[in-house]
Amino acid sequence: MSRLSLNQWTTRRWSVAEAVEGCVRHGVGAIGLWRQDVAAQGLDETVKLVADAGLRVSSLCRGGFLTSGDREALDDNRRAIDEAATLGAACLVMVVGGLPGVTPGEPSPAVDRDLAGARERVAGALAELVPYAAERGVRLALEPLHPMYCADRAVLSTLGQALDLAEPYPAERVGVVVDTFHVWWDPQVLAQIARAGDRIASYQVCDHLHPLPADVLLGRGVMGDGVIDFAPLTRAVAEAGYTGDIEVEIFNADVWAADPDEVLARVKARFAELIER
Amino acid sequence: MSRLSLNQWTTRRWSVAEAVEGCVRHGVGAIGLWRQDVAAQGLDETVKLVADAGLRVSSLCRGGFLTSGDREALDDNRRAIDEAATLGAACLVMVVGGLPGVTPGEPSPAVDRDLAGARERVAGALAELVPYAAERGVRLALEPLHPMYCADRAVLSTLGQALDLAEPYPAERVGVVVDTFHVWWDPQVLAQIARAGDRIASYQVCDHLHPLPADVLLGRGVMGDGVIDFAPLTRAVAEAGYTGDIEVEIFNADVWAADPDEVLARVKARFAELIER
Repeated sequence: MSRLSLNQWTTRRWSVAEAVEGCVRHGVGAIGLWRQDVAAQGLDETVKLVADAGLRVSSLCRGGFLTSGDREALDDNRRAIDEAATLGAACLVMVVGGLPGVTPGEPSPAVDRDLAGARERVAGALAELVPYAAERGVRLALEPLHPMYCADRAVLSTLGQALDLAEPYPAERVGVVVDTFHVWWDPQVLAQIARAGDRIASYQVCDHLHPLPADVLLGRGVMGDGVIDFAPLTRAVAEAGYTGDIEVEIFNADVWAADPDEVLARVKARFAELIER
Repeated sequence: MSRLSLNQWTTRRWSVAEAVEGCVRHGVGAIGLWRQDVAAQGLDETVKLVADAGLRVSSLCRGGFLTSGDREALDDNRRAIDEAATLGAACLVMVVGGLPGVTPGEPSPAVDRDLAGARERVAGALAELVPYAAERGVRLALEPLHPMYCADRAVLSTLGQALDLAEPYPAERVGVVVDTFHVWWDPQVLAQIARAGDRIASYQVCDHLHPLPADVLLGRGVMGDGVIDFAPLTRAVAEAGYTGDIEVEIFNADVWAADPDEVLARVKARFAELIER
């Protein structure tokens, strides 16, 4: 299990302290943390808990939401960068945001439909944030999200688009996240993973359920429970040179309702069968 | 309204005869037909109804579902081609099918996860069907579907992929469908529309609703009710040289429950405001 990382929201009922204990108990070597949970635990206490447990922090979730172009979003991203630096996170995951005026899960009558403009503002915000992150030794990791989230969560929709956005910057400063749920359908995905090479800052695995639940955000499943063929994706990521942690991040009402220890045991078994093999 | 075409499923309660009458009543010059509704009306009677009304048949929906590689699917596509020829349809829309073993809307435990294999079988089936269609003067129109339908309806997910698939064949034999709902999110869409040029066999417009309904198939809305900026897409399609009918195809429970005459009046108004202008 040396490369398995538990993204904290897979066992969402656990606090940071409980998730750290769970990783130790199950022999998981790394953890992906979420900002609000770190804040609830306390940033300094989280640093201590993680260090005492000997865990790596494979990612901090998340910066982003940069499409409106307002200054508050930039300030919040600077705070996220500071936190990632303090935690020694391998990267800060960037979910860039959807169309301005769109609220996830809710009717949004005042939507700004200028998709190209939203994408340009993300590029502009990145130009401001990269130097700040670089000074603090934090790597930003651009995460393309499945196109069904384009309106409300991320106008960054493909790995190719993420690589285009990252291209002006050194790979050690701006990387990309390859999340199987988001990219499995993309006819260009294997070529783009090869192109990504050392830009891959995080490899995240979870399955794409069929049919999708009513809230499509929760359509993620434990590997093997959905439609994704993990072998070609995992092989391509390895051939691109990625040797870092592999994070399991599952948003799923049934998984969240289950006993977190049972979830982690099942994740470990499926990881051994479908990812490590 | 010279270029507006009513896709029959927008006013799904109407039979073919009623939809034809509706088109005449509202001054709509073309209709997109569905095979099962044509069968219910009778193929020869449909030909007569459409001819008497002076309507163009902008498309026949649909062929496809070719990913399993079985012979029955090919036979059914040959029948669809025959029907398209009899109807004088401008194209036969091809929805290529999802992963074998996946049933739309239902748990599908026996899924064949080999996405690359499914895509190869589509290419193979096309090689068999194109000569048959060519002999009958029928143009096949490959329709990329939104990636959220990759598992259950179409492993053809982007316009670029559709153009790659069409490339071995003359443009007048194998074209592509540009449907705003399916392609609006694609960072490459404008470049791929330009690349498509005279491969564009059908331009279909409808909006992408936010939030999506529980059944994501029904997330289509009347233009202006969702998140799509139609102007850049419509301009790109025009600049690519497409001068054919523009079909409005809406799958939406509320639209289907409404009075079809009111739906058609609203579609016309929005078409004038957001597409023709």
